[in-house]
Amino acid sequence: MSNMKDLAIRHSNNPILSPENVSPSSAEMVVECVLNPGVFIFNNKIWLLVRVAERTVQNTGEVTVPIYNEEGGLKMLKFKSNDLKLNKEDPRVINYNGTDYLTTISHLRLFYSEDGSTFHESGNLFGAGKYESYGIEDCRVSQIENTYYLSYTAVSSHGVSVGLQTTTNWTDFKRHGLILPPHNKDCALFTSKIHGKYYALHRPSSPEIGGNYLWLAESPDGLHWGNHKCIAKTRQGKFDSKRLGAGASPIKTPHGWLEIYHGATETNRYCLGALLLDLNDPSIVIARSEEPIMEPLELYEKEGFLGNVVFTNGHIVKDDEIIIYYGASDQYVCQAKFSINDILKHLT
Amino acid sequence: MSNMKDLAIRHSNNPILSPENVSPSSAEMVVECVLNPGVFIFNNKIWLLVRVAERTVQNTGEVTVPIYNEEGGLKMLKFKSNDLKLNKEDPRVINYNGTDYLTTISHLRLFYSEDGSTFHESGNLFGAGKYESYGIEDCRVSQIENTYYLSYTAVSSHGVSVGLQTTTNWTDFKRHGLILPPHNKDCALFTSKIHGKYYALHRPSSPEIGGNYLWLAESPDGLHWGNHKCIAKTRQGKFDSKRLGAGASPIKTPHGWLEIYHGATETNRYCLGALLLDLNDPSIVIARSEEPIMEPLELYEKEGFLGNVVFTNGHIVKDDEIIIYYGASDQYVCQAKFSINDILKHLT
Repeated sequence: MSNMKDLAIRHSNNPILSPENVSPSSAEMVVECVLNPGVFIFNNKIWLLVRVAERTVQNTGEVTVPIYNEEGGLKMLKFKSNDLKLNKEDPRVINYNGTDYLTTISHLRLFYSEDGSTFHESGNLFGAGKYESYGIEDCRVSQIENTYYLSYTAVSSHGVSVGLQTTTNWTDFKRHGLILPPHNKDCALFTSKIHGKYYALHRPSSPEIGGNYLWLAESPDGLHWGNHKCIAKTRQGKFDSKRLGAGASPIKTPHGWLEIYHGATETNRYCLGALLLDLNDPSIVIARSEEPIMEPLELYEKEGFLGNVVFTNGHIVKDDEIIIYYGASDQYVCQAKFSINDILKHLT
Repeated sequence: MSNMKDLAIRHSNNPILSPENVSPSSAEMVVECVLNPGVFIFNNKIWLLVRVAERTVQNTGEVTVPIYNEEGGLKMLKFKSNDLKLNKEDPRVINYNGTDYLTTISHLRLFYSEDGSTFHESGNLFGAGKYESYGIEDCRVSQIENTYYLSYTAVSSHGVSVGLQTTTNWTDFKRHGLILPPHNKDCALFTSKIHGKYYALHRPSSPEIGGNYLWLAESPDGLHWGNHKCIAKTRQGKFDSKRLGAGASPIKTPHGWLEIYHGATETNRYCLGALLLDLNDPSIVIARSEEPIMEPLELYEKEGFLGNVVFTNGHIVKDDEIIIYYGASDQYVCQAKFSINDILKHLT
């Protein structure tokens, strides 16, 4: 199945990680989804920081939602399936009597590989504290000099925000709290400073006026952010008509910062597109995909926890080759390759 | 009318500013509302930076919405009143075919006074650029050492964000862009640093999970913000059940930072409450109003552009006395006095 109609060359052994390959974090949990890994190189190995979404064993006639309590332990909220106050149309979020809850709770799990396609488990990062009581998700890992910046979605009853941790050795982690307030996610730091400033892409959402657009921010220290600018909005009738957000850190090319982003339609079909940003001033968009560079085409991308989804937030770059790791159907971790030159050609 | 049932002593000449006292910014505009002034002392005078909300003369059968174009000039969007795609239930926002527009466009106007109740016009600040094309609103003025920080709501099709300008002389203004991305408003900087850091209150809003809560942020420079913390959420059945947001800068008292904030219900009734924050760590809430310290009671607070609204974002403090300037019914500027001791007693 290599002759697909987009620019991605999918790994022949996809999915490379499935829920059944991954052990639950405790006896009472079931792994529903493995998805959306951050990717980095450390000690000459390729590492994935995979989002593992778990739920409790569901009893007939009941919907159980797991959350962390203040002490970090798991707590179960139970609702009757036939309760009229319960809305469960979206597989990701249920609403009970006006309040939203996630159906699953996510943590991050480390995997390492020598060859980039066979991965071995190596420890967990769990949410902690009042801003992560519904879990942590979709972590981008950006290496800036010797420090790894972990920017991830922190979910709690306070809202959906961007949390940051840093590490140099993957043993000791420093927590920097929420670097962006609700509602925000899909935050990826640039891997190098520009004229002495840190930059990051992020995706705020608005309940009224505005939308789900891609924004850029700058920072003197990587921890405090300002001068926010909107660099890409949704486009009616296109693959990114309802929402768009950054993938992983932009890739520095001689022609500009190349960002692979996700765009979704009103029916939650998620594709990948590309943006080319000015090397000196990344708020200037040089080019943007009219058509996706990758679409949900394979069965594992079309059917799953949330079908018709390809979503990436991690890659390895080697010369002209980008190896992306991506979430398929919000359920599997897959791998695909792009040629930078092919994407640049597609952008012009 | 001084024997009201809340802690505020209203000025006998309220409203002190009404739309009919204020000249429109151009011949084609009509002043609908004057409201929500920032307040500061400069050159031994009391100054208000009033929000002036204008709309165009409305022709029968038509709804016209003013916005700024890219060059800063006014542009009119026209809709047929009977168009089924038009939703005009809220006097502040109309929706046409899924897109929100403000019914009025706001700028900021300076007024000065010798006595604190008779005010004279003295120039305008208009929105400028792509993030302010629907206007600028509700500016807080925080004096930190010799610099005035103007934090205001910047509205455009990109969303509702917090813009910042600084000035030392009220002639030259420095623009710092958007310090908080959408959806955010009601941002007030603390008037002094705490352990070398700037602090600000702000109010992000979430389209799902979370709500309209009061948050605190910190900054090394007043321009870049991080370590966001939620310090007050809405409370079911109380005056702040649907949304709450900061008023002006917190007032330093020996017992803590005293913040007068606004809370609103599901039916858009806006009252004022108080919060007491720890002097050394303002993320610690020492006390919070169970009942409002001020409610819409007078006719000018109960009837107007948006009735049942008292909203403050500016004050002068002298010993035990807080003189607040406030928006009444989103239409008038009024004045009232509080005793700090009375508020502290109410909090315990």
